[in-house]
Amino acid sequence: MEEVFVVNGVRKDELLPAFNDDHGGVIVELKEPMDPNNFRSRLRASLFQWKLQGKKGVWIKIPIGLVNLVETAVKEGFWYHHAEPDYLMLVNWIPVIDSTIPANATHRVSIGAIIVNDKRELLVVQEKNGKLKGKGIWKIPTGVIEQGEDIFAGAIREVKEETGVDTEFVELLAFRQMHKALFGKSDLLFLCMLRPLSYKIQKQDLEIEAAQWMPLEEYAAQPFTQKHSLYKYINDLCLAKLDGSYAGFTPRPITSIFGDSISYLYVNKQDLNRRIFSLN
Amino acid sequence: MEEVFVVNGVRKDELLPAFNDDHGGVIVELKEPMDPNNFRSRLRASLFQWKLQGKKGVWIKIPIGLVNLVETAVKEGFWYHHAEPDYLMLVNWIPVIDSTIPANATHRVSIGAIIVNDKRELLVVQEKNGKLKGKGIWKIPTGVIEQGEDIFAGAIREVKEETGVDTEFVELLAFRQMHKALFGKSDLLFLCMLRPLSYKIQKQDLEIEAAQWMPLEEYAAQPFTQKHSLYKYINDLCLAKLDGSYAGFTPRPITSIFGDSISYLYVNKQDLNRRIFSLN
Repeated sequence: MEEVFVVNGVRKDELLPAFNDDHGGVIVELKEPMDPNNFRSRLRASLFQWKLQGKKGVWIKIPIGLVNLVETAVKEGFWYHHAEPDYLMLVNWIPVIDSTIPANATHRVSIGAIIVNDKRELLVVQEKNGKLKGKGIWKIPTGVIEQGEDIFAGAIREVKEETGVDTEFVELLAFRQMHKALFGKSDLLFLCMLRPLSYKIQKQDLEIEAAQWMPLEEYAAQPFTQKHSLYKYINDLCLAKLDGSYAGFTPRPITSIFGDSISYLYVNKQDLNRRIFSLN
Repeated sequence: MEEVFVVNGVRKDELLPAFNDDHGGVIVELKEPMDPNNFRSRLRASLFQWKLQGKKGVWIKIPIGLVNLVETAVKEGFWYHHAEPDYLMLVNWIPVIDSTIPANATHRVSIGAIIVNDKRELLVVQEKNGKLKGKGIWKIPTGVIEQGEDIFAGAIREVKEETGVDTEFVELLAFRQMHKALFGKSDLLFLCMLRPLSYKIQKQDLEIEAAQWMPLEEYAAQPFTQKHSLYKYINDLCLAKLDGSYAGFTPRPITSIFGDSISYLYVNKQDLNRRIFSLN
């Protein structure tokens, strides 16, 4: 006789639909509304089965429309892994030891854009919000990279949005890793040199108080620039790049190990080319 | 007469305790258990007040122990912003337009460690899990940076954990930005050159199938290395660095704009020093 019931009166065909991941675990994506009590029975029976099968991590993705099932999952031993506006991902680790559950995303990525025109003027802004608000400090345009956006593309977009200036990417000069930036997450700030393709400034009103082209010496002379090492470095890097003595990183397309998608590897192209050239 | 009731019979002193953020919004951190119906009344009255006060973003942090309040917040118009194992952050934007709610963290940060001993052998491993499992491919040790960890420190830690080898940080040679790596998040892989301080290999059993010092030529000759541009670049970068013709980035401590905490700026120190030296 076929075994129809798994545990607690739950039929085999009522187990939660799950697919395997690459790490010995299973992923459940809830889609249909369910009564919380029914969900609890099905979840318990499914966990029982997965345990017998030696599964490790169990992931449950609950869309925000099924928020009424979240409490049940937590009461059955699941905890939060990450959330996006429209869903919550919960996780549970079946074995007693050795959890290798991958961490949630840990970093926000932002860019700072260093743009100099042919009069040696730097494109600078004053911000309407945040900690520099109302302080009269001129700084380079900065902004946060969107999900899925390349760093070089994000730099061009942010400058256009904040100042109306069109640019092209030249080189990545440096980057800063800072911890506890936002909700305990870290921030990677990539300092990019861009070349202006237009000069007329049209500032964005929501975030930007003022924008202008400012002589580099004036930027450097601001007490704030003098006092803060990041702002001083921005000035030093800018001058070093302008006089041709500095090599940063340039993005080069590479294909992914699996699949055809293109990623970018940022390397010191100058040094790498020189070496490859000298070998040929 | 003092105005005691705000709305719907909720007393002023029953409004949810909130503090202001730097961007015209408020943050509520729930700590005490509450009946969901009581929470709904207090949330509605509080939202009414915040609207009158012209507040913009409203954040509610709900610890996992109070999961029974999540459904109520969602039904009152909140959505998920992010989650960590022990809490869920929800958000709502009061104005009709112009949401400037900052995005959740978008990137995971990982490292690849390039370590060569004085016999020109590369430290390589085979992995037990993931997409290269069982394929017999030798690769450099890689791993994910923990929340709050510096890149150079994470590289040293991962190599020690996976292979038992002690190292010191030399330079960051390149990095790759890849999208849709994990739960739709992006990955930044920093390729770091480290110098070995010990040579005996003691592999970690949970994640590593095998580990060895492998002649660079053998690594380069693997069909897999030949075929995949990232692995080829790793070989080229390694050779360029060994023969002294390549400058990557080095971390330099900088102080934060606000507060005393130390961050690191990764720069091409060689070029920057040369320039500053030539100016003096």
